[in-house]
Amino acid sequence: MKLLRVGTPGAERPALLDEDGTTLRDLSGIVTDIDGALLADDAALERVRAAAAAGELPVLEAGQRVGAPLARVGKVVCIGLNYHDHARETNAQAPSEPIIFFKAADTVVGPDDTVLIPRGSVKTDWEIELAVVIGRTARYLDSQEEALAHVGAYAVSNDVSERAFQLERGGQWDKGKNCETFNPLGPWLVTSDEVPDPQALAMRLSVNGETKQDGTTADMIFPVAEIVRYVSQFMTLYPGDVINTGTPAGVAMGRPEPKPYLRAGDVMELEIEGLGTQRQQLKDA
Amino acid sequence: MKLLRVGTPGAERPALLDEDGTTLRDLSGIVTDIDGALLADDAALERVRAAAAAGELPVLEAGQRVGAPLARVGKVVCIGLNYHDHARETNAQAPSEPIIFFKAADTVVGPDDTVLIPRGSVKTDWEIELAVVIGRTARYLDSQEEALAHVGAYAVSNDVSERAFQLERGGQWDKGKNCETFNPLGPWLVTSDEVPDPQALAMRLSVNGETKQDGTTADMIFPVAEIVRYVSQFMTLYPGDVINTGTPAGVAMGRPEPKPYLRAGDVMELEIEGLGTQRQQLKDA
Repeated sequence: MKLLRVGTPGAERPALLDEDGTTLRDLSGIVTDIDGALLADDAALERVRAAAAAGELPVLEAGQRVGAPLARVGKVVCIGLNYHDHARETNAQAPSEPIIFFKAADTVVGPDDTVLIPRGSVKTDWEIELAVVIGRTARYLDSQEEALAHVGAYAVSNDVSERAFQLERGGQWDKGKNCETFNPLGPWLVTSDEVPDPQALAMRLSVNGETKQDGTTADMIFPVAEIVRYVSQFMTLYPGDVINTGTPAGVAMGRPEPKPYLRAGDVMELEIEGLGTQRQQLKDA
Repeated sequence: MKLLRVGTPGAERPALLDEDGTTLRDLSGIVTDIDGALLADDAALERVRAAAAAGELPVLEAGQRVGAPLARVGKVVCIGLNYHDHARETNAQAPSEPIIFFKAADTVVGPDDTVLIPRGSVKTDWEIELAVVIGRTARYLDSQEEALAHVGAYAVSNDVSERAFQLERGGQWDKGKNCETFNPLGPWLVTSDEVPDPQALAMRLSVNGETKQDGTTADMIFPVAEIVRYVSQFMTLYPGDVINTGTPAGVAMGRPEPKPYLRAGDVMELEIEGLGTQRQQLKDA
C-alpha cells in the first residue's frame, strides 16, 4: 500500500493512493493518522487493505498539498558514506562499519515543500536517499533476516546538508544536517510487502532539470538489512523511527570547483523506483 | 516553580513541588502535562502559580516514582567539550566554537530510573550536565540577552556515554550517546525565573558514594546564553527541546588506566545546586 498525508501543514489527513496510481482515498474514517503506531498495528493495516479492496474509501479532492507521509516521526538516524561511488567522490575510504549521525525529526517536511537555504550558507547540498521506516521495535537483533521483518515501509528522502556547517565549523556532522526543512520525505510510505528487494531500486536526483545523481541501492556498502541489524546494537529502534540509508555519487561536494551548491530559486527533483517523486524549490531562510 | 511528573512510566501525572521542598501538589486539574506547550504558555504558567499561591492544589501521595519532568521531548542537542577542565582531562583543545551532537529524545528517562549498560559495552561513562529546556521558538537569535529569554527551564541531566561506541567504532559521536536509558533527566524543571544566573551553579556526581565530578557551571567555555544563540544559527529550537550543555572534569575516560567505567550494580548520584538530585543504579541490558 501507498500511504500518505494530504492537507495544510499541521492539519494533514491520512490517505491511500489507489492502485490506479492517481486517485487518493480518504483514510480518516478508519485510521487516526499515518504514524508508527499504525505501522506496528497489523490489524489496522489489514482493515485499510480490506476497505480499499471493497471500494469503501471515499475519494479525496485532487490537487491538495502532500505533507510528510509520517506523523510523529521518532528519531531520524542517518548512515554516512554508504555508497561505494559516493565514498570515492568525496575521497573517503569505504567505512569498515556503518557511520551513524542524526537529523532532528523537526527537519522533516513534505516532498514538495520549500527547502530553506540557511542564513550564512554557501554550501547547501542535496542527497537522495532511501528512507526506511521502522514498523516493529528493534533491539539487539541477531540477523539480517530478522532485521528486514522490522521494516514497516520505505520512502524517498532528501538528506539536505550544509557542507561548511557539517565539515568546517568544528566537531560533528550534525551541525550541517539539522537546519529547518532539511529533510523532505515522501510522497508516500510504501509498505514493505510491496518492496521485495530494497537493494534493487534505481534512484535519480536532478537540479534545474539536469541529472546530478543517477544511482541504485544495489551500490550500498551496507544493505538495509545490515543497517537495521547494526543500528539495533547501539540504540533501540521504535515504530515511526526513520533511517536515511545514505546517498549515491553526484552531490555538489563531489564536483570540481566551482562546486554547484544550491541557490535560491533552484529546483530539486527526486525519484526512487516505485516510491514516487519529490520536487522542492529553494528559498533563502 | 519546580515542575515534575510522577507515576508509572507512560502514565505520569503533572505535579508541582511545594515551596516547602517536600510536598507534591497535583497539577492534573489545571494542565494536561508538563511539556513544551506549557513552557510556551505564559497564561497557563500563571494559572499554576496562582493556584499554588491560593493553596488550591491537592496534595499528591508521597513515595511515587518520579518520571522525566518533560513530556514529548523534542530534540536533545548536546554540546561537547564545553568545560575547560574536561577539555584538559581528555587531552582535547578547547573548541573555538561549540561542538554539537545529538541524543534521541527516546533516551530520556526519569531521574532515578535504571540505566542499562549496553550489550558489548566495556566503557559506559557518566556526565553530569546542566540541561536547558527551550520555552520559546528560537531561530537566528541576534544576541545572548535575547537567547536567555528563550529558555523556559533548567534541570539536571546525565549524558551517559559509551566511549568505545563513541570514539572507536567509526565516524560520529552519536553512536555512543543513544543507547536506551542514556539520558536521565530531572527530578524537576526549575522555571528560568528561579535561576537568575545559570553560570553560578555547583554540580557534583558520585559513583558508589565516591565523588567523581565536582564542578561549577562557571567553568563553561561557552555559557548558556551563547550556546542558545549559537545553536539557533544552525537549527530552529522549539519549546520542549533540550540542550545538554556539557560536563565538567571527572569522567571515567579522563582517569588513568584502568579507567573506572561503570558496571552493573554501580550507583550514580548527581546534584546541581537548586535543581535537585538524581540516583541511578546500573544494570546490564
